Amino acid sequence: MQIELYYWPDIQGRGEFIRLALEAAGVDYIDVARGEDGMTQLLDTLQSTAILHPPFAPPFIRTGGAVIAQVATILQALGPRLQLVPPDEAGRLWVHQCQLTIADLVVEVHDTHHPLGNGQYYEDQKPEALRRSAEFRNERLPKFLHYFESILERNPDGDAFLVGAALTYADLSMFQMLAGLGHAFPKAMARVGAEVPRLLALQQRVAHVPNVARYLQSERRLDFNNDDIWRQYPELDD
Amino acid sequence: MQIELYYWPDIQGRGEFIRLALEAAGVDYIDVARGEDGMTQLLDTLQSTAILHPPFAPPFIRTGGAVIAQVATILQALGPRLQLVPPDEAGRLWVHQCQLTIADLVVEVHDTHHPLGNGQYYEDQKPEALRRSAEFRNERLPKFLHYFESILERNPDGDAFLVGAALTYADLSMFQMLAGLGHAFPKAMARVGAEVPRLLALQQRVAHVPNVARYLQSERRLDFNNDDIWRQYPELDD
Repeated sequence: MQIELYYWPDIQGRGEFIRLALEAAGVDYIDVARGEDGMTQLLDTLQSTAILHPPFAPPFIRTGGAVIAQVATILQALGPRLQLVPPDEAGRLWVHQCQLTIADLVVEVHDTHHPLGNGQYYEDQKPEALRRSAEFRNERLPKFLHYFESILERNPDGDAFLVGAALTYADLSMFQMLAGLGHAFPKAMARVGAEVPRLLALQQRVAHVPNVARYLQSERRLDFNNDDIWRQYPELDD
Repeated sequence: MQIELYYWPDIQGRGEFIRLALEAAGVDYIDVARGEDGMTQLLDTLQSTAILHPPFAPPFIRTGGAVIAQVATILQALGPRLQLVPPDEAGRLWVHQCQLTIADLVVEVHDTHHPLGNGQYYEDQKPEALRRSAEFRNERLPKFLHYFESILERNPDGDAFLVGAALTYADLSMFQMLAGLGHAFPKAMARVGAEVPRLLALQQRVAHVPNVARYLQSERRLDFNNDDIWRQYPELDD
């Protein structure tokens, strides 16, 4: 069954968590919005009243006649097929729980530059972004990263992966989050990163998974940019 | 297997999505933090390094030796046992996807009064809260509610429930969200509510499920208050 991914074509964004999973698994997929007439197809699908389980927003996938949205749901649904989950139910639930905590962090990263919402430009909420990002860098970022470091530390199968002894979609998402944070907050990450060596090692380990490494060097991997979740505004960093 | 719920004892908050599911199913559970020494137990568990799958934040549950956190994960794990999910896998995934979109809305409601983060009092971010909540009421609230209305409208089993022909945990969470929105934004909800009659009927339907009705009239149901997610600040309403 072919997998069609629908996501904004010019940013990594939340779609990148799905792209990374598809790429790591080496499956054939179509990044619909990056093809010809792709944006029309994305918007038509988003607005279609014929879809029984409509997506609220991209990313969503279409496979075998089903439309599935929400990053964590998509990854959970594809996980077994992509071989990116442990074999046992308890392990799968734990991977999913980790993914939802990464999703919470995504929202907080986004809110550093858009604390007043997406309806106003960054330039129109810059003083507020400065205040929100200070709290993020000093309180929230260390709290989240220490939490994930402790997960690696507690993993009875060793600290190579978040869950069990093999790569899961949560590791791929954690890699993406750390790459994004390093891009957006290089100074804060130099400071906090020193306290989470297992996480940084995980980031490197995932980057060197052959399929991931090939993807990162391909043209399919978009660069970070300032329309994305992880934006490089030096004034919001340490 | 006994279920222990760990959540802040003085607010409905995110814990209420779990309480409602447990109450609707009529299962025996312990609301740990509301018992004697409850807060100590909650904080001790939260900080324990002996838990293999640590929670990032409340709510979390403990059952059969497992600790599970994240509202949506808890509901997904308990769903079959509480008989609050459809029988088929595709239906269960769809319930979960709906739950995650409700979770997104929870964050946006919270951000109306704390756009700059939890580290600063509402009183110290009031002008920002006014701006954020205007966008919320005018753009985001209608967008979310029309989306959920369309889910009811498209349900091939009728518009009595979000998914299938029977109550699921997503209906209970939707009830809670609508009750909270009605408390926090009575004027905006009078305006937007008129456009989503199926959702308001769902709210009434859920409120009259016998176990839910009994719970809502019991002392176990806390009142909304201004330490909660849904706060009544008239200046943030229409």
